[in-house]
Formats: sequence, structure tokens, C-alpha cells
Amino acid sequence: MSEEKVWPHHELGKKLNNWGRWGEDDQIGTLNFVTPHKRVESAKLVRTGKSFDLGMPFDSEGPFKGGGFRNNPIHVMTLLPSDTAMAPDTMISADDMIVTGLQSATQWDGLAHVGYGGFFYNNVPAGAVNNFTGAGRNSFHHAVERLVSRGVLLDIARLKGVDRLEDSYEITEADLLAAEERQGVRVESGDIVLLRTGSYKWFLEGDRERYLGNAPGPCLDTCRWLYEREVAALAMDNFSGEVWPSPIEGSTIPFHQVVIRDMGLTLGEMFNLEELAADCEEDGVWDGLLVAPGLKVTGATGSPITPLLLK
Amino acid sequence: MSEEKVWPHHELGKKLNNWGRWGEDDQIGTLNFVTPHKRVESAKLVRTGKSFDLGMPFDSEGPFKGGGFRNNPIHVMTLLPSDTAMAPDTMISADDMIVTGLQSATQWDGLAHVGYGGFFYNNVPAGAVNNFTGAGRNSFHHAVERLVSRGVLLDIARLKGVDRLEDSYEITEADLLAAEERQGVRVESGDIVLLRTGSYKWFLEGDRERYLGNAPGPCLDTCRWLYEREVAALAMDNFSGEVWPSPIEGSTIPFHQVVIRDMGLTLGEMFNLEELAADCEEDGVWDGLLVAPGLKVTGATGSPITPLLLK
Amino acid sequence: MSEEKVWPHHELGKKLNNWGRWGEDDQIGTLNFVTPHKRVESAKLVRTGKSFDLGMPFDSEGPFKGGGFRNNPIHVMTLLPSDTAMAPDTMISADDMIVTGLQSATQWDGLAHVGYGGFFYNNVPAGAVNNFTGAGRNSFHHAVERLVSRGVLLDIARLKGVDRLEDSYEITEADLLAAEERQGVRVESGDIVLLRTGSYKWFLEGDRERYLGNAPGPCLDTCRWLYEREVAALAMDNFSGEVWPSPIEGSTIPFHQVVIRDMGLTLGEMFNLEELAADCEEDGVWDGLLVAPGLKVTGATGSPITPLLLK
Amino acid sequence: MSEEKVWPHHELGKKLNNWGRWGEDDQIGTLNFVTPHKRVESAKLVRTGKSFDLGMPFDSEGPFKGGGFRNNPIHVMTLLPSDTAMAPDTMISADDMIVTGLQSATQWDGLAHVGYGGFFYNNVPAGAVNNFTGAGRNSFHHAVERLVSRGVLLDIARLKGVDRLEDSYEITEADLLAAEERQGVRVESGDIVLLRTGSYKWFLEGDRERYLGNAPGPCLDTCRWLYEREVAALAMDNFSGEVWPSPIEGSTIPFHQVVIRDMGLTLGEMFNLEELAADCEEDGVWDGLLVAPGLKVTGATGSPITPLLLK
Repeated sequence: MSEEKVWPHHELGKKLNNWGRWGEDDQIGTLNFVTPHKRVESAKLVRTGKSFDLGMPFDSEGPFKGGGFRNNPIHVMTLLPSDTAMAPDTMISADDMIVTGLQSATQWDGLAHVGYGGFFYNNVPAGAVNNFTGAGRNSFHHAVERLVSRGVLLDIARLKGVDRLEDSYEITEADLLAAEERQGVRVESGDIVLLRTGSYKWFLEGDRERYLGNAPGPCLDTCRWLYEREVAALAMDNFSGEVWPSPIEGSTIPFHQVVIRDMGLTLGEMFNLEELAADCEEDGVWDGLLVAPGLKVTGATGSPITPLLLK
Repeated sequence: MSEEKVWPHHELGKKLNNWGRWGEDDQIGTLNFVTPHKRVESAKLVRTGKSFDLGMPFDSEGPFKGGGFRNNPIHVMTLLPSDTAMAPDTMISADDMIVTGLQSATQWDGLAHVGYGGFFYNNVPAGAVNNFTGAGRNSFHHAVERLVSRGVLLDIARLKGVDRLEDSYEITEADLLAAEERQGVRVESGDIVLLRTGSYKWFLEGDRERYLGNAPGPCLDTCRWLYEREVAALAMDNFSGEVWPSPIEGSTIPFHQVVIRDMGLTLGEMFNLEELAADCEEDGVWDGLLVAPGLKVTGATGSPITPLLLK
Repeated sequence: MSEEKVWPHHELGKKLNNWGRWGEDDQIGTLNFVTPHKRVESAKLVRTGKSFDLGMPFDSEGPFKGGGFRNNPIHVMTLLPSDTAMAPDTMISADDMIVTGLQSATQWDGLAHVGYGGFFYNNVPAGAVNNFTGAGRNSFHHAVERLVSRGVLLDIARLKGVDRLEDSYEITEADLLAAEERQGVRVESGDIVLLRTGSYKWFLEGDRERYLGNAPGPCLDTCRWLYEREVAALAMDNFSGEVWPSPIEGSTIPFHQVVIRDMGLTLGEMFNLEELAADCEEDGVWDGLLVAPGLKVTGATGSPITPLLLK
Repeated sequence: MSEEKVWPHHELGKKLNNWGRWGEDDQIGTLNFVTPHKRVESAKLVRTGKSFDLGMPFDSEGPFKGGGFRNNPIHVMTLLPSDTAMAPDTMISADDMIVTGLQSATQWDGLAHVGYGGFFYNNVPAGAVNNFTGAGRNSFHHAVERLVSRGVLLDIARLKGVDRLEDSYEITEADLLAAEERQGVRVESGDIVLLRTGSYKWFLEGDRERYLGNAPGPCLDTCRWLYEREVAALAMDNFSGEVWPSPIEGSTIPFHQVVIRDMGLTLGEMFNLEELAADCEEDGVWDGLLVAPGLKVTGATGSPITPLLLK
């Protein structure tokens, strides 16, 4: 693989590189910032007991249209009440199964999801992710138990005074700082940042095509801030996990490359932040306990989740 | 469907019935005990920040052998680093999908999973669960956001001074009371009880057949205690969710019938309680914040989960 | 189940009923007309060796849109050349899997697919088709080896001088007779009739919605002819297997009910007859050896197929 | 990829190479020998109309144990009679789906299944088989319509006077010639050869492990004969498609490499030849019309099939 051309995101990645920071064998990256102490502090944020469901339903009405490598979940019943004619005590039972992309609705991208230059996070060669082992290294299943921490919402749409950011709007570090300022909140080590663009509204309004279209999202300019603040994970409401399409010609997802591969940052997509954001605006409290462990699928590049935020 | 014969579990179910208790439209049963206040109190149990992963891995090494209506999860890569030869910036990416029974490993049984006499919990007719809607009523997806609460471990194996309870041992109310007494802990309204039989060791030791065989577990005698203590959900380490085989001839899962259908109690199975139990024995602290939201699959009878217990 | 109302298709079904005709245990119905003698005669129809592929591709571009109980096939690679870095002799290999409805593209409807009044073909109770056994009776897998016989194309669109029949056109017995007359061909015992409406053109033109919309097709009026001619199986180019929507209010697929349940006739859908029909028109030969065995899936209601017609 | 070492199978492959023989764009290899004339001649072999089903059932009782990249078929009902309570005319219906490896039971290996040195048959680079296109070249779907031709059974087990050949017995060219001699039959251009080792009996007797174990099968010595006789496709009753394990250290499937990659020969596995062989022994007729088209799955490395042999 040739790397003759110098790519700006790769240059940036070198500066923000966390390889080896938590040892040569580390497979969870910035989730190491979620320490026991952090858990204790985060749990204290459950002050009123309000709970917000940030998940998209897993069903055939999901955002995808069929084709490609991501299908909407197919849910099938494997046992029905009608199957139980033989039960002397009239017992009825039902079971079901699902066929789903692990990234088909609200989800975490793990550290085996994106890399470049032949490597994933922490010097893991491309070949470690294959059909025999799945993600033989950096599997998301190592990360599951770290995904309970302080969640902080940064509402960029409200910052800009709009319902949703315009298509392909590039969220910058200045936006993040301004949102903190406006909201009176500060992102700290081990936090999981919830970034609201408002683009989830397209999905709620039933416009799948627009939701999967040109999306506002963070650009490379935000990486240094994520690094310096020691953010544990970043989640957002768009489908793409960064501004779409990429502002860098020849690179489809440069932000993913830097944060996932160089920094070791777990990335969340398709979070429904609408109800939570309205509540935060109303009570002025922008943080809480984020609960989003996902599923421990062996050798996975990520996980479907139904995240909760408890305030 | 004939109900001429009087079944003891159905008689018991009548006495412990919660239908209508939370309204005619209620679909989550005893999870109503998980109130905002309960969340606040439960979060306070995160005292040291230790985290315990109670989940079974989701993979082809799961407990099932193929056939029947529950298969071990099939995990397949849908995108690999090798697919990205065209990326000018050498980006590599991986994606994956899963085919899995919703009850194929650690899981919650929802309120559309078991009923009798033509009805599921809260007067829901059998026909509400069908191939068009899945669980058109009592779907587990309504329950997801309630599955964060105080978790209390009752270690019946340690109570009896054994590594694991003997095959088909029937856990009684007296056992539960004795475990509380021995551990110095009391189960309260809204708690999620974690019941340890020790049978998970069979799975850990690689003996799938034994793990799926005659299992110790709770019997009907425990239902009244669950009812009176206002337990929100009950999870255990065996595969069957109750003593196996059933002590009542002609009824395969009488305990499920009473707790799920009459009481509206969500039931957890295949929880790995080994490491947690050892820790609790050591520090004498038997409770914590249980985090086990599962996935919001529309119309589901349950959900795969990777539960966490934070102490 | 109440049958107080007298339905015209059920009345017709009584007259054309084949239950018991081939024994009480028969599970293949009119495919019994495909005898060894018939095979010998049919094979003689391979006169020039021309071969016509009547199948729709199985892929994500199929006619369905997601949702419901029929999904387009999902084809996933499970092994790729990139997985073979370890092969000393540079061997590369690829494997794949499919998730597909058995009726998701060109397919046979078997005798466990449709019934009424609580029964399928040959007195099989509804409960014989369940989640434990699949189609415990009348499974398509019994029929596989009979699906090689004489195929006769009846081109109703050409008969009417149109590219395709108009939406919801009801093909009648008179049409079938006229097509035989025009084409100079006669349908005989054991034949598999290929009925062309021209509606497959919608699919070829990329208009899935129209293809799945109001379709021309055979109506009840053709059943007697199918019965008297001892047709072994009937296949057509529309998606619905009969005129759509049903001309009988309160009944969605009355033709299916009579032919599959009462007569025991296997029904084919989504056959691509375009190229074959053009060839037949040109050379005046309207029959050949139809080869469409399908897959022997145990307990199946039907099978995906790629049918061939050899002339 | 280094090819410094000279491998005997690669040397042989060079001598038997068919690349370019049917044009640079050819994707079906030796199936080109199945010409219109061949079809006409083959159809004449249907003399008595006897039909033999050579397929393994597709179900959870298949040969695989779970894990790896080949699973036994999972068959799930997606519609049941119980779903039709709303049908005024008491119509009942059932539908189903399948999750299956394309090579999970009786199957054809297509020309994108195995290669070496970075290439598949006819100069197709490894990268043409990927997760975006599946088998972007040499897909089995191009081959479907050629898989009707003369089938000739060569019964090596009977030749040796045994029920089944011993484990890992290497079938040689001399064996093939001797079988022809003994049976009084000669393999000709365009034939599909059915090679019986008897190892299918292990599967019939329920011993999956033995069936998937050390298998008798053809070795490299047979390749020249296959080439010179212009065999269109070769099918056998073992699971491995060649002698197992490989007699060449460092190469797992050398026979596959030569016949599929160099010669362009489609390979069939897990054919049930037991009943057919007994019949042939009895009547002395060792050929017939083989009908095994498979499914036209776009971009596939092979296809599940239920092959028929008509005599």
C-alpha cells in the first residue's frame, strides 16, 4: 500500500496518536479514561431519575434501503402461541430471531471498524480483521463494560439557533467551545460526548433518503479538542459519524480515520438526541449517566445499542 | 382451549395476578417498580466503581447445538480491509452482521414470551403475537429503558456451601430468606434479583450438554416472595429460568407462566454471576447498579444483553 | 373457524377436489401426473438444444422493498481471498451465504403454502404447518424430483396483440383455449403450463412498484381447464400467481386456494418468459423440456428456483 | 504473494490450463463443452423415465456442527396458518425463509471458489471477489443454465469391491479407466462425471464427524484424464471434493486449485449416489440426463442444489 501522498488527516493523526499509551496490547483506546473513579462520579449525576431513550428502533423501518453491506434488521418469529397445541396446561410461548448488521441502527463503531495505511488502532495489522476471527484484535466486545460514564450533550443546532444544522455543515472546535460556554458545561476526562446536529429529525419525519444524505457533523478541526479533553467516546445523531461528504477529496471518512485509528476513540452514530436536548434546554442540566454497553459479540467491529441517559 | 383441569401454577397465578395494576394498557409489568426515585437510589450504590460483566459471549461457541428454534449467534463479516483497494488515502474498513435468536445467550424474556389459557400478561390475547406484528403487545422494546436499577445478588450455591447446586434442585422461598439473612441484605421494591445456582460453571467448563440439562432453579414456592417484595425483574445463571425439568407433570415451565404471565415479571437467563459472586463474598457487599437495557427490537419477545453490575 | 358463508371459490374447489386421488398420504398432488412415461416423452422435446433461463436473479435488486415476511435475498461473503495469507502455496478461496425468503424471487409455491377452512391439500390440518416441523406435511421437498416435465408456453399477451396485458386483466378458460388454437399446441396430462401475461416487463424495466401492483393473471374460470387437462404445475410471469387484486371481495387469493388446496397443484411465480416467448413466436414451437427442480429444504412451503426450458 | 517454491499442482495446472480457450471474458470454463448438440444427445438418455434424487436435505441435520464459515441451513417460518385470523374466507397461508451457506449441503463449487497465485480462473484477479460485488467475475450464476447434460456414474467403491473406499484413498486415473472398463461406459466431451467413493454412507448412518473426516477422493493424477476427456463438471459423494487430507504438505486442496482455477472445471460435492449406483449396477446402464441447475444468486461462489439423474 502506497502512502506517498501526504494526507492532512494522517498528519493530524500522527500528532494525536495514542498507540502504546495504554500498553501494546490495549484494545479499547480512550475508553481507558472510564476509570472506577469516573464511574463513581458519573453515577452521582442521576439526580432526578429521569431516563432518556436515545435509541432508534431495530426493525424493517430503519434507515437503509437494502443492498450494500448494511441491511435493516429482519426480525422473524421462530415460535408462536399457535405452536403449542400439545401443551396440556395450555401454555403458550413465543421466540424470535434477528438478522441485522451490527451497524444497522443506533450503534457504536469499535476500534476494528476503520484504519488506514494497513493498520488499525494500536498497530493492529489489517489482516487481524478477517473472516476466520472476525475482528481478531480491537474487537468491540472488549469495550462493552466501559460504556457507562458521564454523558454530556453539546447541542450545536441550538447553539446556532436552528432546528437542524444545514447539510454538510462542518462542526468545528470553536463550535464545541461555544456550546460549552452557552450551556455552562465543561467536558472532562472520561466523558462520553453526545453531539447534536438535529439531522435525526429527517429520520423522525420519515425522510430516510435525506437522513442518509449530506449530513452536518464534526470535521478534523475538532480532533485536537477531543484529544485534549480526554473524551472517552463520541456519539452523534447523524448517520455518518462525521460531516458528509468528506471535505477532503479522495478521502471518504477522514475524521473516522483519525479518531478511531490514531486516537482509539469509539464512535457512536444514529443517536436520537431530540427529546433529551429539549429537556436539557429546559432544565439547564446537560449531563447525566450514559448507559450504553451494547452486546458482547465476539470479534465484532461494533454493536447495536439502545443507549439511555439518566439525569 | 380447554382449562378443565385445575393446575396448581394457574391457581397460584390468580393470587399473584398484576393485570390492570398499572392500567389496562400497561406492557411492562413489575418494571413499573423501577421509578425515578429508585434510579436515584440505585445510582448511589456505585461506591468503588468496580464493574462486573455478567454476559455470555455471543458467538458460535454458545450453548446451543443447532436445530430447534434457537441457534447460536452466527457472526459474519460484511466488509473487510481487503475490500478497500480503491481508497486513495489507504483507508481500510470493516463491517459485520449477526444472525441470532433473541434468546440465544444472556437475555431477558419479555412479557410476550410465555402465557397460558390463550392469554399473555395483562389480558393480551395469544393472537397479538404473530408473524405480522411480532409481539404486537407486551413487546420487550417497551421495557428497555427500565432495566437500570438496583441489582441484588442472592447466592444460593454459597448458602448451601457448594460450588453449584445439584441438578434439578428446587430453590424455595426459605432459601431466598436464608440467603438474605446470611448475606445481610434485603431485597426491596424495584430491585432486580440475581439468583446464583452455580450451574453456569458447566458452561465455563465447556460442558454445553450438562449446562442445557437438568438445572437447579427457582420453583413456584418463590413466587409469593417475588410478588410481596415487588421485585422488578429476576435473573439467574442457568439456561432455563427455573428448575428443570418441571416438577409438575404435564407442565414444562410453570414458573415462567406465573411470573411472566400473571405477575408481569421480566426474567433473565444465562447470566454469568461467577466473578461477581466471588467479589461479593469477599467484600460483603451484595448489591450495586445493574445496567442491562438490551436492544429495542420492535415487536420482540425478549432481548440479548450484556448486563453490567457496578459496585 | 366459521364457514357459514358460501364462497364461490370453495364451491368450485369441491368440484375439482383431488383429495385422496393419489392416496391418503399423498403430498405432491397433480405432480403425480409426471410419470416415468411422461419424462421419456418430455425429454424427446429437446430438439435443437437451445436453452432458456426463466429465472430472476437472486439479489438485493429483487422485487421486494423490505418489511413484511418476504425480503430480497441478502448475499454475504463468508470467506475471501484476503483470508488466506497463511496458505504456503498461495491458495485463495471464497465462500458465501444467503438469507432469503423461499418465495423471494422465481419460485414454486408448494402444497403447504395456501389452504382454507382449517386444512391444506389432502386433508392436512393447519397445525401440521408450524414452527417445530415447518411444513410437517405437504412439504415442497417431496415435490422436487417431479419438476422435470414438458413445459408448454401459452402467451396470452401475444394472443391479445399487446406487449403486456392490462392491469388486473382476468385470464379466462376461453383465453387459454384461444392461445392453444393460435399457437397450434395442446396441453396434455403431466404438462407444466407457462402462462405469459407480459407483466414481467415491469420488473425488467426497473419498476418494482408496478410489478408488485395490480397484475393480470388467471382467475377461477381457468380452474376447470387445469383440472380436466391434468396439468401438473402452472407457472406464470407475474408476482402474484393469479389476477391481482382478487375479484372476490373478502378473499385475497381465491385462485391459490382452489388450485393448491383442493386440486393439489404446484404454482410458479415470477418466471421470466420474455426471451422464451419471442423465440417460440419465431419458430412456432411452444413446448420443450422444463427443468425446475428447486431445493429440497426440509419442511418447506416452496422453493426458490432457476427454471430452464430446453427446446 | 511469493511463488518462489515450485508446487507440483501448479506445474500440472500450467499444462492443463484452459485460460483464454473460450475467450478472455469466459466465466464458465469447461461448461462450454455443454453445447446445444450435447443437450440433444443427453436428453435421449431418458429411456425409462426413472428419476434419482442425488441431493442431501437442506436442514439443521446437515453435516456441519456450527462455527466456521459454513453453517447448516436454518429454516424459519415467516408466516403460519395462525396468522390469518382476519381472513373472512378462512384462508390460511404459510411462508418461510432460509439462512444457509451456499456450500452447506449438496452443491456446486463455481469458478470463483478457489484459485492461487493471486488469480482465479481465466486471469481473474483475487480482488474481483470482494464484499462489494461478491464474485464480481466467475460468478456461479453464469453457469446455471449449463448444468443439464449427460451424467455418467463411475463407481470406484464397487470397482474395488467395497462398501466404501478406505479413508483418504487416492482415486487415480487408472481407477477411472478401470471403472469405465468394468462398467462398459465411456466418458465423453461435455459429460458430468459422478464419482462414487461410498463415503456418503457415513452421513446416511448419522456419523457426521466421520463424514467430515479423512475422505477418499480424486487426487492430482486424475486431472489429465478430466482434461483430455473434456469433462464439463465433476461431482462426487464426499464432502471435500478431493482426497482429504491433501497428500501434498503445505497445500490443503491442490486438486481444487488445478481443476477449478487452471482448467475452469465446476466441482460438485456431497452428492448422494447410493440409490443411483445400486440401480446402475442392476441394470448395467451407467448414464442418464443430469439435471442440476442450482440457483442464480448474483455474484456467488457456488450454489446449493438438488440434482436429479433421469434414466
